[in-house]
Amino acid sequence: MGKEDVKKNLARVLNWTHSGDQLERSFQFGDFKETMRFANQVADLAEREGHHPDFEIHYAQLKLTLWTHAVGGLTENDFIMAEEINKL
Amino acid sequence: MGKEDVKKNLARVLNWTHSGDQLERSFQFGDFKETMRFANQVADLAEREGHHPDFEIHYAQLKLTLWTHAVGGLTENDFIMAEEINKL
Repeated sequence: MGKEDVKKNLARVLNWTHSGDQLERSFQFGDFKETMRFANQVADLAEREGHHPDFEIHYAQLKLTLWTHAVGGLTENDFIMAEEINKL
Repeated sequence: MGKEDVKKNLARVLNWTHSGDQLERSFQFGDFKETMRFANQVADLAEREGHHPDFEIHYAQLKLTLWTHAVGGLTENDFIMAEEINKL
């Protein structure tokens, strides 16, 4: 996906930012338990969709990173996944 | 904990390395489900012990990082936690 397409698609995914060839979103929770609960919801979704973000868990903070390894960049799949995560 | 003490204590925690003021261990699993299963076991342990590592999950890889935020370095608690994680 070219830069112009990425820019257009970013409008679909509130709170996600574009960094390098990746989409990132950070979440802040009340405590570690809440963080893990949400991380597990994302994990279940990732298994259903067959598309897995990277997770960084730091107590009450979670950072998710999405990109498509096979093409080394962003594809429609990444934006669909970001939309689905936003619905959780 | 001083450098000499860290060096001594590292012998207690097989497969953990010392990087900066942190303890790190990386794990390789068969797939994402196995990674999440283990990450959740570590999370339960962290809640029981009241000491939370950082998690980096990249599909079948998990990296754990331990240190004691309050002192900005390593304490006995970190080595106990590393030992407990090794027993999982």
